[in-house]
Amino acid sequence: MKAVGVVVEYNPFHNGHAYHLEQAKKVAQADIVIAVMSGTFLQRGEPAMVDKWTRTKMALSGGVDIVIELPYVFSTAPATDFAKGAIFLLSAIGCDSFAFGSEDGSIKPFMNTFQLINNHRTEYDNLIKESLKTGVSYPKSLHYAYEQLSQKFPATYIDLAQPNNILGFHYIEAAMTLGSNIKPLTIPRIAAGYHDPLQEGASIASATGIRKALASTSELQSVHDVLPKASFDNLADWYGKNHNFASWETFWPFLQFTLIRHTPSELPRYAEVTEGIENALIKAAKTSHSFSSFMEKIKSKRYTWTRLQRMLTHIYTGFTKEQLHSFDAPSYIRLLGMSTKGQAFLGKYKKDITLPLVSRVAATDDVMLAIDIHVAEVYNSSIEQGTKMLSLPRDYQTPPIRF
Amino acid sequence: MKAVGVVVEYNPFHNGHAYHLEQAKKVAQADIVIAVMSGTFLQRGEPAMVDKWTRTKMALSGGVDIVIELPYVFSTAPATDFAKGAIFLLSAIGCDSFAFGSEDGSIKPFMNTFQLINNHRTEYDNLIKESLKTGVSYPKSLHYAYEQLSQKFPATYIDLAQPNNILGFHYIEAAMTLGSNIKPLTIPRIAAGYHDPLQEGASIASATGIRKALASTSELQSVHDVLPKASFDNLADWYGKNHNFASWETFWPFLQFTLIRHTPSELPRYAEVTEGIENALIKAAKTSHSFSSFMEKIKSKRYTWTRLQRMLTHIYTGFTKEQLHSFDAPSYIRLLGMSTKGQAFLGKYKKDITLPLVSRVAATDDVMLAIDIHVAEVYNSSIEQGTKMLSLPRDYQTPPIRF
Repeated sequence: MKAVGVVVEYNPFHNGHAYHLEQAKKVAQADIVIAVMSGTFLQRGEPAMVDKWTRTKMALSGGVDIVIELPYVFSTAPATDFAKGAIFLLSAIGCDSFAFGSEDGSIKPFMNTFQLINNHRTEYDNLIKESLKTGVSYPKSLHYAYEQLSQKFPATYIDLAQPNNILGFHYIEAAMTLGSNIKPLTIPRIAAGYHDPLQEGASIASATGIRKALASTSELQSVHDVLPKASFDNLADWYGKNHNFASWETFWPFLQFTLIRHTPSELPRYAEVTEGIENALIKAAKTSHSFSSFMEKIKSKRYTWTRLQRMLTHIYTGFTKEQLHSFDAPSYIRLLGMSTKGQAFLGKYKKDITLPLVSRVAATDDVMLAIDIHVAEVYNSSIEQGTKMLSLPRDYQTPPIRF
Repeated sequence: MKAVGVVVEYNPFHNGHAYHLEQAKKVAQADIVIAVMSGTFLQRGEPAMVDKWTRTKMALSGGVDIVIELPYVFSTAPATDFAKGAIFLLSAIGCDSFAFGSEDGSIKPFMNTFQLINNHRTEYDNLIKESLKTGVSYPKSLHYAYEQLSQKFPATYIDLAQPNNILGFHYIEAAMTLGSNIKPLTIPRIAAGYHDPLQEGASIASATGIRKALASTSELQSVHDVLPKASFDNLADWYGKNHNFASWETFWPFLQFTLIRHTPSELPRYAEVTEGIENALIKAAKTSHSFSSFMEKIKSKRYTWTRLQRMLTHIYTGFTKEQLHSFDAPSYIRLLGMSTKGQAFLGKYKKDITLPLVSRVAATDDVMLAIDIHVAEVYNSSIEQGTKMLSLPRDYQTPPIRF
């Protein structure tokens, strides 16, 4: 049995994801697909719109055979570490290959870009530093360094201004750095751009577009055409129970309270919170009625929106720099769900899996896993406050979903 | 000009308080009354039902001439420190005497009790320890030690089972320990017991009874007869703007979130949180829909309700053991409001006041005052979340109220 891996957030699972899965299996000539999925908080530093169990159901219905969780430590990390954690897990569970969607669509330019940067690392780093000194943001400095380098050594490279190309680059970097045999594959993304709004009559939309549509209308029907039926039903089910989708806007009362509850000197202990921003965060919290008005007040050239959201995520969950720096690679594989074929795969190759496979977490003393459980409680509590009831399954009590 | 001091919470100011003020002036033959009032969180470890400015207005309308704030560090402390902070401030601002309501009503038995305990301190402390070892609560152990001691040295003592007698005892203890010339006076409490519910047709009710009546009915009219008109109008005005009175029930979503956001090992750093209770607090928070159901789960013989509430107050505001232990006595007098007569008093005796008199706090580097400002922001934020608007005056921007 051959397995292809995918790195996903499924926030929510839509037709584009279904297409990607189909293509991944075809291109990889794989029997099953294994998805490593972020649990509660995502790479752009925001809460998942529905919990990990609902998204696992969507994934299994949509064609994934095994869903495993990318631990919080990696799911909320900058692209390099995010990719490292994800590829490490796909490799550990026994995938022959992994497939990612990209604007570029062919793997060779990715390899060229990786070689270019890898072979000229010092020069690249110096170019970044040089640019950072002039006060431009980190992503823009990366772009500058990359431009300079690729002009110096001409070849076919990927366009690193495209968000999915950046992630793809980091996946390949991770695979190469890990020294794993896992084979990178890429599939061209179809139709919708990352931030594009929904198009009338289209069956493909970006997850961002879908979330925006749902935030601006309470009418779930507006996203009906761009979701597989099972995804739509799962979202509708969630909405029926919780009357809302999780977002920074719905979590805002607690974020605001948490920021105000802290004195400035306490904030820089949290992961990614740079010394110097603490007063601005607290001051803005005291005078803002919503997350968006808060963000308007704190956004700056120095930090990307994503970086700011990641800081806020870590303040929200109480995740410290000390905790962040105590981890290097995932220490377990948390199984969130599997199909019959997925189960067969695990039965057959279990002994080859290089990490403990965790399906129930009642009694764990793994520190990284304890963080996932903690963060899930914080996430659940934020959602349940809106509904004034305790309705979500306690994360640690939930067995993998079988499909 | 002679000033008599009173130690108050005015939560809310009612007819019994008005009576007490009248009596205090009479007994002390004083020209003005100075009240030292708790700001946001009170001695029983709960938020004040309305903010300090509204309660200051009630106090001034009710006959107080100067309202000063008892800093958070003392307003939320056990009786000994609460009394110490309050009497220290009344003495510092120049009161000749202070008057407290008591079940006993005459000062001699208070003095006898103070002498009894003070002269046999070691024996008293040993009796307490002895009782604590058998597993009974601290208040009950105090009671046991006191009983033993007073039987050994018969005289007329106060009944220390009465809550106002206990406070009175600590006021006298504070005055004696401070070596201040301030003269203690007591006034018999009239009618309503501490926890008594409202009586049909009565004009006197306890503050607890009034709060309970308001919690069980949204009908403000139900407390009309037991409040002076100005108090009633101030409460009505607050309710009109904020649609609620502050309580642990209205603050519960944030308390719950804050408890769940912490890992157990982090909780014992907060003031009064004893090592060993942290798991119970977090576990109960995860499974409770309201503050009352939460308290049902954590109450125990070992801790009084008040003690538990004080722990929760400090967790809520982020006030640590380290902060608590860095203070001995108030370092400033925060002026919340004054009448014309109060202003005349301050004009006349300002130079004799032994602490800095703070009326605007825009630029303070006093650490204790910074805590008051911080706590007021936490308190305001909790109330404003309910109304989804920022409407309360920022504490540090608010000048004293002139009446």
